[in-house]
Amino acid sequence: MKVIVVGASGAVGKAAAEALASRHEVIRVNRSSGDLTMDIEDVDSIRAMYQQVGRVDAVVSAVGHGHFGSVDAMSGEQFMLGINHKVLPQVNLVLVGLDHVNDGGCFTLTSGVLNRDPIRGGSCAAAANGALDGFVLGAAVDMPRGIRINSVSPEVLEVSRERYDGFFRGHYHVSNEAVALAYSKAVEGCQTGQVYTVDFG
Amino acid sequence: MKVIVVGASGAVGKAAAEALASRHEVIRVNRSSGDLTMDIEDVDSIRAMYQQVGRVDAVVSAVGHGHFGSVDAMSGEQFMLGINHKVLPQVNLVLVGLDHVNDGGCFTLTSGVLNRDPIRGGSCAAAANGALDGFVLGAAVDMPRGIRINSVSPEVLEVSRERYDGFFRGHYHVSNEAVALAYSKAVEGCQTGQVYTVDFG
Repeated sequence: MKVIVVGASGAVGKAAAEALASRHEVIRVNRSSGDLTMDIEDVDSIRAMYQQVGRVDAVVSAVGHGHFGSVDAMSGEQFMLGINHKVLPQVNLVLVGLDHVNDGGCFTLTSGVLNRDPIRGGSCAAAANGALDGFVLGAAVDMPRGIRINSVSPEVLEVSRERYDGFFRGHYHVSNEAVALAYSKAVEGCQTGQVYTVDFG
Repeated sequence: MKVIVVGASGAVGKAAAEALASRHEVIRVNRSSGDLTMDIEDVDSIRAMYQQVGRVDAVVSAVGHGHFGSVDAMSGEQFMLGINHKVLPQVNLVLVGLDHVNDGGCFTLTSGVLNRDPIRGGSCAAAANGALDGFVLGAAVDMPRGIRINSVSPEVLEVSRERYDGFFRGHYHVSNEAVALAYSKAVEGCQTGQVYTVDFG
């Protein structure tokens, strides 16, 4: 299969890309490195990326960030950062990409743990994750030509332990191998409209 | 208790307001009718409403709409209609309202069935519902002064059967009484960070 991995330089995307590359042709797309560069917050940049790559079998997205801070000190504008930087870019990757994915292909988006196991200050991220999980469930029933769509919702990765030190007390930190299994199931499996959680392993 | 019900002229808000009014002082807030009028998409209008009402014990929101249409004919702008008309207004009602709710008070938002039981063309609404359900789970752990926050996620109401005729084949249509129970539990109960689904009754 020919597989685009967007956000392949991040911890999650790297785990996904490395596992898939052992069996497939993987095109790594990042903001400023990789096989191709793209600004995922710019629809024209997404469109240009697809035109350059040509038709593919699978698109994996592992991008996005938002606002962290307590809800009683958050503005509406800060709330929207999660929507604008994590939800809409991944949704646009699907909306713009539909014509570039082969029959029976798939999209795999990335949400995260915070809408099932919250931490303080995480309501913006929790909403973004919920929107993505809801979107794949809703979009799956509309997809043309047998195209599937799922999300992977991983716990914090072991490789990101230092980066998030102190914020995720008591949370299990998952291995790259466990995360890669979820992307493998999403890309190489058979289901659609699923949220593949990675809470252990 | 003193309870604000925003969107009290809609099918869901009306069911909630009528049930709560038998035991509490209910202030009905709509765009163009009710005890007070407010434009929930305008933060200044939300702020003015809270200043006029004074401190309250509970805020119930049953507002919002989005885009219906298949994902392969949807633009990013259409996707954002659910965020801008359903998610952000209800989130702003919380963010602006926190200082106006008494200790131990609560917020109750309204999502909907489409992020657990999809229909064709419902991915925008499914994402909006997921965002709201995720937000209440994330925000609950941040709430000051014992304030609770939950969402109610109802199936289509029996009273809305004609309005949505043909779109929700096979879906159970719930009674006003069943919907009102969920808002009663959210407002008069003890839990926080919950999504109260109403699928039958």
